[in-house]
Amino acid sequence: MLSKAQIKYIVSLQHKKYRQKFGQFVAEGDKIVQELLQDHRDVKAVFATREWLLDHRELAESAAAVDIQEVEPAVLKQLSSLSTPNQALALVNIPKAPPLQMEGAVTLALETIQDPGNMGTIIRIADWFGIRQIVCSPDSVDAYNAKTIQATMGSIMRVPVIVQDIPALLDKFPKVASYAATLHGDNIIHTKTIREGIILVGNESRGLSEEVLKRSSHHITIPRTGHAESLNAAVATGIICGRLLI
Amino acid sequence: MLSKAQIKYIVSLQHKKYRQKFGQFVAEGDKIVQELLQDHRDVKAVFATREWLLDHRELAESAAAVDIQEVEPAVLKQLSSLSTPNQALALVNIPKAPPLQMEGAVTLALETIQDPGNMGTIIRIADWFGIRQIVCSPDSVDAYNAKTIQATMGSIMRVPVIVQDIPALLDKFPKVASYAATLHGDNIIHTKTIREGIILVGNESRGLSEEVLKRSSHHITIPRTGHAESLNAAVATGIICGRLLI
Repeated sequence: MLSKAQIKYIVSLQHKKYRQKFGQFVAEGDKIVQELLQDHRDVKAVFATREWLLDHRELAESAAAVDIQEVEPAVLKQLSSLSTPNQALALVNIPKAPPLQMEGAVTLALETIQDPGNMGTIIRIADWFGIRQIVCSPDSVDAYNAKTIQATMGSIMRVPVIVQDIPALLDKFPKVASYAATLHGDNIIHTKTIREGIILVGNESRGLSEEVLKRSSHHITIPRTGHAESLNAAVATGIICGRLLI
Repeated sequence: MLSKAQIKYIVSLQHKKYRQKFGQFVAEGDKIVQELLQDHRDVKAVFATREWLLDHRELAESAAAVDIQEVEPAVLKQLSSLSTPNQALALVNIPKAPPLQMEGAVTLALETIQDPGNMGTIIRIADWFGIRQIVCSPDSVDAYNAKTIQATMGSIMRVPVIVQDIPALLDKFPKVASYAATLHGDNIIHTKTIREGIILVGNESRGLSEEVLKRSSHHITIPRTGHAESLNAAVATGIICGRLLI
């Protein structure tokens, strides 16, 4: 049974401050907990309903190093930060980000992405296209918040996310080509496939800052043939990856 | 002031049944209400806080045919179906869908899309790329629910959404090329730009049904170079449009 202190600890991880202090985060959801257990190096504990544990007995038994505990749905609800709590929840160590590797690799750099769902969806896109690493500006939504984690569908464990100022990143690697997504750049259909470089995506309403735009070697635009004012940031990231990386 | 009956009526429109019965829907949110007022043919009424009306006085005055009412934030909260209610809400006539036009046009056909956010984001993508019409299977999430409307960012008024069985649609237009998104089709990078045809996207977990796949003239796939198991349905739609339509 979970002690009050344990519950308090897990709930505290809903706040970025405590995630950073303790180096752990909580992943909620049937699918993501399954994925985490399959490759369980960083999973410390799983809390799940009896029903879920019966349904995934083999998987749970294969992860002998993980502390797996049956909990009542009411306790799971207490632990959850989501409005519709799930059947399973995992306590996971935040993976240590490896040093940046820019040569021969594609990096995705995000400036001030605010929506946790967008952030998670973008991490999933990066994982699909084999992007080496994601760099987020310090004012972006935290990659380890529950909604983001859920939207990554497990990709959070495969794509390193590094927090760093984006203009500083561009200053540090001036020779690496950088592709800034804007509404007034060159049509992406004229950009050749890349194997190295930095793809830059900005805030949902304001886009990239002037500081980033003036440091970028290329400005690229998804041509509009209809009437929508803009595209969702995650969708735009997907479309750009679908033109530049394949 | 809003009467109890009016409040009851607006709240009833949270249900698809009543939206269909009365031919109206509710759009919530600052940005979308602004967009709707700019082209206000189908807007019947706007309910907004005093603050919002002061901020958008010119816009409100320009829409003389619209019944614009100031309401208390508490009333707005009563009317809202969203967890974070907005400053403004509009009552809008569901536009009449024009007859399907397949010749010389691109159609997006959606089978069993379940997530309202995905549906709205896809409608916005269709609007960006100038897609003529969207056909949804009857078991898809309703295009006029509040979360979908919010995610369309106004595009719902520009892209006709028609509810129809997808295999029946394909049977009706056997000569129109159809492009089914699957995990095991031809690499999309080999598909040329199209000016006519049906792009088919399926359910978030199961994809397209066998009934649809066997009726499609092309099976297309976004090649994976990384490790994610799948892509978000709206992101996949965006990537496909970004290869086939530009």
